[in-house]
Amino acid sequence: MKLPGQEESDLSSASENVPTGELDSGPGSGLSPDGPLDIDSRELEVPKDPPLFIQLNELLGWPHVPEWKETGRWVLFEEKLEVGAGRWSAPHVPTVALPSLQKLRSLLAKGLVLLDCPALSLQELAEQVIRVESLSPELRGKLKALLLQRPQHLIQTPCTSPCWGSAHSREASQEEEAPLKEQHQNPRRQKFPAGAEAGAVLAGQLGFLEQPLGVFVRLQDPVVLGPLIEVPLPSRFFCLLLGPPTLGRGYHEMGRAMAILLSDLQFQWRVRRASSLHDLLAALDAFLEEVTVLPPGRWDPTARIPPPKRLPSEHKRLPSQLRVAKGPSLRRRTPAEDRHGRRQRAANPELRRTGRLFGGLVQDVRRKASWYPSDFLDALHPQCFSAVLYIYLATITNAITFGGLLGEATDGAQGVLESFLGTAVTGAAFCLTAGQPLTILSSTGPVLVFERLLFSFSRDHSLDYLPFRLWVGIWVAIFCLVLVATEASVLVRYFTRFTEEGFCALISLIFIYDAVGKMLTLTRAYPIQRPGSPTYGCLCQYPDPGGNESQWTSTNPKDRDDILSMDLGLVNASLLPPPECAQRGGHPRGPSCHTVPDVAFFSILLFLTSFLFAMALKHIKTSRFFPSVVRKMLGDFSSVLAILLGCGLDAFLGLATPKLMVPREFKPTLPGRGWLVSPFGANPWWLSVAAALPALLLSILIFMDQQITGVILNRAEYRLRKGAGFHLDLFCVAVLMPLTSALGLPWYVSATVISLAHMDSLRRESRACAPGEAPSFLGIREQRLTGLAVFILTGISIFLAPILKFIPMPLLYGIFLYMGVTAISSIQFTKRVQLLLIPAKHQPDLLFLRHVPLSRVHLFTAIQLACLGLLWIIKSTPAAIIFPIMLLGLVGVRKALEWVFSPQELLWLDELMPEKERSIPESGVEPECSFSGSDSEDSELMYQPKAPEINISVN
Amino acid sequence: MKLPGQEESDLSSASENVPTGELDSGPGSGLSPDGPLDIDSRELEVPKDPPLFIQLNELLGWPHVPEWKETGRWVLFEEKLEVGAGRWSAPHVPTVALPSLQKLRSLLAKGLVLLDCPALSLQELAEQVIRVESLSPELRGKLKALLLQRPQHLIQTPCTSPCWGSAHSREASQEEEAPLKEQHQNPRRQKFPAGAEAGAVLAGQLGFLEQPLGVFVRLQDPVVLGPLIEVPLPSRFFCLLLGPPTLGRGYHEMGRAMAILLSDLQFQWRVRRASSLHDLLAALDAFLEEVTVLPPGRWDPTARIPPPKRLPSEHKRLPSQLRVAKGPSLRRRTPAEDRHGRRQRAANPELRRTGRLFGGLVQDVRRKASWYPSDFLDALHPQCFSAVLYIYLATITNAITFGGLLGEATDGAQGVLESFLGTAVTGAAFCLTAGQPLTILSSTGPVLVFERLLFSFSRDHSLDYLPFRLWVGIWVAIFCLVLVATEASVLVRYFTRFTEEGFCALISLIFIYDAVGKMLTLTRAYPIQRPGSPTYGCLCQYPDPGGNESQWTSTNPKDRDDILSMDLGLVNASLLPPPECAQRGGHPRGPSCHTVPDVAFFSILLFLTSFLFAMALKHIKTSRFFPSVVRKMLGDFSSVLAILLGCGLDAFLGLATPKLMVPREFKPTLPGRGWLVSPFGANPWWLSVAAALPALLLSILIFMDQQITGVILNRAEYRLRKGAGFHLDLFCVAVLMPLTSALGLPWYVSATVISLAHMDSLRRESRACAPGEAPSFLGIREQRLTGLAVFILTGISIFLAPILKFIPMPLLYGIFLYMGVTAISSIQFTKRVQLLLIPAKHQPDLLFLRHVPLSRVHLFTAIQLACLGLLWIIKSTPAAIIFPIMLLGLVGVRKALEWVFSPQELLWLDELMPEKERSIPESGVEPECSFSGSDSEDSELMYQPKAPEINISVN
Repeated sequence: MKLPGQEESDLSSASENVPTGELDSGPGSGLSPDGPLDIDSRELEVPKDPPLFIQLNELLGWPHVPEWKETGRWVLFEEKLEVGAGRWSAPHVPTVALPSLQKLRSLLAKGLVLLDCPALSLQELAEQVIRVESLSPELRGKLKALLLQRPQHLIQTPCTSPCWGSAHSREASQEEEAPLKEQHQNPRRQKFPAGAEAGAVLAGQLGFLEQPLGVFVRLQDPVVLGPLIEVPLPSRFFCLLLGPPTLGRGYHEMGRAMAILLSDLQFQWRVRRASSLHDLLAALDAFLEEVTVLPPGRWDPTARIPPPKRLPSEHKRLPSQLRVAKGPSLRRRTPAEDRHGRRQRAANPELRRTGRLFGGLVQDVRRKASWYPSDFLDALHPQCFSAVLYIYLATITNAITFGGLLGEATDGAQGVLESFLGTAVTGAAFCLTAGQPLTILSSTGPVLVFERLLFSFSRDHSLDYLPFRLWVGIWVAIFCLVLVATEASVLVRYFTRFTEEGFCALISLIFIYDAVGKMLTLTRAYPIQRPGSPTYGCLCQYPDPGGNESQWTSTNPKDRDDILSMDLGLVNASLLPPPECAQRGGHPRGPSCHTVPDVAFFSILLFLTSFLFAMALKHIKTSRFFPSVVRKMLGDFSSVLAILLGCGLDAFLGLATPKLMVPREFKPTLPGRGWLVSPFGANPWWLSVAAALPALLLSILIFMDQQITGVILNRAEYRLRKGAGFHLDLFCVAVLMPLTSALGLPWYVSATVISLAHMDSLRRESRACAPGEAPSFLGIREQRLTGLAVFILTGISIFLAPILKFIPMPLLYGIFLYMGVTAISSIQFTKRVQLLLIPAKHQPDLLFLRHVPLSRVHLFTAIQLACLGLLWIIKSTPAAIIFPIMLLGLVGVRKALEWVFSPQELLWLDELMPEKERSIPESGVEPECSFSGSDSEDSELMYQPKAPEINISVN
Repeated sequence: MKLPGQEESDLSSASENVPTGELDSGPGSGLSPDGPLDIDSRELEVPKDPPLFIQLNELLGWPHVPEWKETGRWVLFEEKLEVGAGRWSAPHVPTVALPSLQKLRSLLAKGLVLLDCPALSLQELAEQVIRVESLSPELRGKLKALLLQRPQHLIQTPCTSPCWGSAHSREASQEEEAPLKEQHQNPRRQKFPAGAEAGAVLAGQLGFLEQPLGVFVRLQDPVVLGPLIEVPLPSRFFCLLLGPPTLGRGYHEMGRAMAILLSDLQFQWRVRRASSLHDLLAALDAFLEEVTVLPPGRWDPTARIPPPKRLPSEHKRLPSQLRVAKGPSLRRRTPAEDRHGRRQRAANPELRRTGRLFGGLVQDVRRKASWYPSDFLDALHPQCFSAVLYIYLATITNAITFGGLLGEATDGAQGVLESFLGTAVTGAAFCLTAGQPLTILSSTGPVLVFERLLFSFSRDHSLDYLPFRLWVGIWVAIFCLVLVATEASVLVRYFTRFTEEGFCALISLIFIYDAVGKMLTLTRAYPIQRPGSPTYGCLCQYPDPGGNESQWTSTNPKDRDDILSMDLGLVNASLLPPPECAQRGGHPRGPSCHTVPDVAFFSILLFLTSFLFAMALKHIKTSRFFPSVVRKMLGDFSSVLAILLGCGLDAFLGLATPKLMVPREFKPTLPGRGWLVSPFGANPWWLSVAAALPALLLSILIFMDQQITGVILNRAEYRLRKGAGFHLDLFCVAVLMPLTSALGLPWYVSATVISLAHMDSLRRESRACAPGEAPSFLGIREQRLTGLAVFILTGISIFLAPILKFIPMPLLYGIFLYMGVTAISSIQFTKRVQLLLIPAKHQPDLLFLRHVPLSRVHLFTAIQLACLGLLWIIKSTPAAIIFPIMLLGLVGVRKALEWVFSPQELLWLDELMPEKERSIPESGVEPECSFSGSDSEDSELMYQPKAPEINISVN
């Protein structure tokens, strides 16, 4: 899960800490002259020009029936009319041959340039335009008539069938000056923000001209030029490029060149301010100074390049006077600064130590209190409704899966009902009080793993589990409060990607291993019946007519030692199935009375169904099929749909698969206990003290799990305005700990994936975006109401719990496997492990591969693998329960890596630790910069699609 | 399965009909100045220049320790040194900023240009170069020392770990003039053909210079310049671009610009012939005339563009004097001609009617006879060994799958053993005599479908199947001979893509439907045991001690009517499983004695295993993982591996899954019949006449199946030199027909997929290719030996047949499904059906979508869907057996489409039929050409990666 706008806002996050209305953010990055860095530019107060829509009308059909036809249009990218197909091409990067630009330049140089022309209509404009000296009056008349002729537009209505502009009459008349109905109905119109302007380029060969004719007009006030433009936008620019047919297709290409120039923001900026022909040509020359050329012979000039994922910054291209004026603030940061920035920003200001007891907590409370009213008012937006539905479904899927697994791991000490109740209560409480209300509290993988270990420990030592667990919870709360008091959260900066990935990979692997392991266990519980195995023997034995058990004699026991070989002798029996047999007073006898055939393989099928369908549905999200709404829906609800599908299949076949354990009424899953856990139970008193030891381990785990999620959520790329609350969040988690322990509910911490999904569903994006441009990310609707609503709905759903007993367990194992596989696929570590299998020649162009020797990359991966192997071995020994300490040990290993790898290598493969960050002089971080010392290397870093940086720990 | 070089050879196929040695074809398209159309160029006798390797050595470290370092290299594409990672980047399209080219031009204009410099070593060259007027003698000395300094190369040895050139001594000495050992060991050296030359570009900032220094040298005779170039190639060009540090990175960029210029074939061509500075600058200007520009702001100049799949033709770029001289033969064909070409070439000369009885056959025999000796000599190449192994495995997989399915469809009238025998005998005979010896004879889908229908027909009418089938075979032979005599094969030109796709889609759907249907049938044979179903009742009942059957009384039969409800009373019984029970003299009694649990679901698992694994392994072929040899192996043997995996799983669990039916000895699968089929059996005599009716249908089917494959195999893009033999092939198939019928073997025709795979494994490709360039396709090793060897091996494998009885049938159904899905995915029709689900905005940029309105595309698809639906309905009625006639009916529907669609639309969506082809004047085919009338549109068509055009019918 990756939110865009990752590095863009680096500079701006500090200045962003002021609530701003949505409109302030402008209509979208691409349409403003300063490009994606729109926020930086606000600081710089660069004057903003309105976005420009450029249309190329081409004169076709000369000499027979000349008519204008729109054959191209531009905002950021080019769309070309596919004449044969009657549709617009996909937006693509416009390319043009260099000679066309040069010919255009010379045509403009000797042509007519009218700047600030006062024309108020197409009629008036045509009058102005035809005043070219070289034209005879007769030709002027002909030309004017031609200019007033209505052009053909291809307006694509949302219903996919394209329809040509219905009116095809070609007489020029005054009435046509008014924009046409079809222009107004053009769906594209809504794409433009208020104030957008248009530019019209008219080009083509015209037989009656003897000289090429070039006219460039900038209108004083933009005006709607009748039906000239397919969208009734006021036109600011008008360009006419006509000439005798000697040049052939040259006019078309010149027209495209003009349109491409106009679609360039810097050119626009200059031309809007041009006061003479000289300025216009200077703008064109400045454009030429910046173009990149593709050599012929290596690149087919007609190939269409799809829009890049990220546009290059317009900053580097700002007119030099502006650049100089602004001085150092415009200096491009080096990649090293950039990568430093991420960590430093995260550390600032929430992760700065105050030095006072509970100082961080007090600071958090103060900061969040000022936002509290807005945390509810900001939720008044329809988007929040769909977010609630989405997160609600994800939350109950989580509650069911984890509840089911927890119920199994703890022999029913917790279960689905506890999971629902706990999720609802703690989630709602957290939403109302937490520092980061976008966080969704949930059972998470690490805590589940720990609870399983704790349960087997207590079972091995014959302890009363729930009372023991209560004390663990109490101690955890105490330890966590100590951590809050000492502001331990600032230490989170030592958790680099290395640690995060180790944490995530271990938990993911445990998920995968457990899911597969549980399936194999099932095949032991429901054995597969091979031809030789005792499958057929089951018999209902009745008392003999005398009321005694009938004889069940073994006449031949020496031959084979199993019951199969026994001759039963004379028995009073029937073939009734066991339940009916018992009903009739008989006893089911025989080796296969308790086997259930077919269940094992059907369970495997269900397992595969839920896993493969969840995976497939997730991939639909990025496929081409279906409208994006449907696609998003299928992708978002992949687990729910996979579970529903599996339940349907199970219900259809009606086999006795193992089902989710759900109590019939609202009472704890463990029979015979009340909602409150007794503080001692059958345990000795000193266990309440001894519980401090496992509690210490759990505290480490909870601290790591909670804070890694916190850091990920509060990354600057999400542009959160209301700040984080690391101390407050940990405090809330600590307070909820004894509560859930006393009620025998699962333990909860913040879950990364579902919280990121929550943020993702609350993204604010610019709406008006040019074709081919990705919508720009404006921020997140930070509020407490969606979370609260989700948990209230979850609470209500407790009463739906009884229908959950229809869910077969293998489905949940499949979802479990899916979660593990998804989580482990999302980290860079997995990419690097895959690199071990890819020959160097075919390796993808990853950024770190450009800057770190492959052998060093492999060494880093190997060390991570070794750590993982060690953790796995510990996990498999009786000392498994100490694995939180070993996870913490990863920080130490990472520290030791500084002896093996250079800071540069660690910067690319991981991040720097706080001390190192300070110790490295800025310029010295990248030795290759001193070699190439250039913008070029820099920008490669800035615009390369980075490997996703969000490490998803399993929630 | 797509062989490259599809359209390239269009013009040349006629001229190619002369046997030429392999070396004639030149070292590869990219390295010759005429680009991919290398064969055309031979006609034109364009002088060929040797390929050029260009290296950029950059001066780094000034002012401290200046040293030369190779930072870029070019052949066709650019490879950049990743300094930090110490590796070469992937090859990419070189781009450069326009100003760099302009600065380079002005530097060269006032610099030193030495053409045909007679230097014989680096030493001498340096002497020449430093004779620049502006330099003082002292500076000349310094400069010379610098030039003789040994540069650092990054030579990547095949072992992935990169190693810097080991020798780092920096003194200039005479000894270093000799090429270094590491240069000779450079693996890249082998990539260059004999005669390749090098060009060295040296650039960088040099503090002691006051003026920029530009030197361009063309050496009279290319000479190895010591350690200058990483590969010890003789250098032809040498360029030095140094200057004071004012320009910063400018020298690097100028150096790149120079290298890019030199890597351009046209520039090379001109510069090799330049006689003055003026010519050099003119070449540069000519280059600039042709470049494409990418606007700034829309494209990040540092982004790397991967090499295009096809390079644009160098033909359009030929120096104009050449272009004029050659006149019309250089005219680029229009896309319409191009598409015409495909069909027309297929028709020429093999498909031209002679008008004499058996005239085509005689012609075929004559033509092929002249090639007969070479058909064996041409096989003497190691490549043929691996081709034999590959095709052998594919053939026996085919034989097993089809044999197994045929055995099931005909109740064992044919089976795996017959399939092996028939494949071996007919295949070998065909290889020795056929017109197109690359064709692999195999059971194919359509024939399998027909045989199944024929069998159920004969069963329904209680006919003796094999004798009836014998007569069908005899009649088919007669009909086919009539078709050969009348040269009916020329009619194949009416089978357009519409017909081929209908044919393929129907058969694929039957495959998919049958595979799934058979699995469902299995679950009926091995019922799933639900909790309520009678699963547990089976009992071994013995005679009572008196020797009579013990009492099996039913005391309560009213309650329920099944046996479960029966009280058995007193019985003498045991729980022994049925086989052992019978052994001991008892009788298994009870409802579940004959059910086999777990088999149904396990079969489904096996089915999914083989299907999913075959699909996954096939996709590995195009993934990045593993070296390409391993990848190709896994992909090619996907079905074999999937079957092996499934067999292993089955053997491991040891369940009684239904297995392939294979007789234990070498005898027909049907018990009790000899190898020869009696001509009448139990059938009435008149059936031998009536068999003519189904034979007519089968003849149609065999004709279509055989000839569609023939047309596909003989397409011009495969550059076959020995011509086709449509009439001869059909003749061979006809002759084999009564033979296989008399022996009760399956019927055989040419199979598309496996024959294409055969050709693919025999491709000749140019070896010496530039990084990033796809190897160019030179032709196919046409011979008869590989096929013959494959079928001899298949014949030997008959004796391995008994081990085939371990293959579970569900695995074969899975492979069957895989074949159906693969076949239907490969046709354009499927792409168009998918378009129905893709919103217009997200549709891929397919060529026909650019030229045909979407609604028309959908209409065409809908008509195809309707035809398919109609065929399916007929297939489901008792009249199913007439489906071959309905397939032929597709030709009629296609003809009728001419009333609905314009020829242009049909040209894009299908092909034209013979009459239409003639009737359309060349220029009128593409109306949009008259509008755009340009090269641009043309080349878009030529270089767009086309949708795969090979329709794979299911083999």
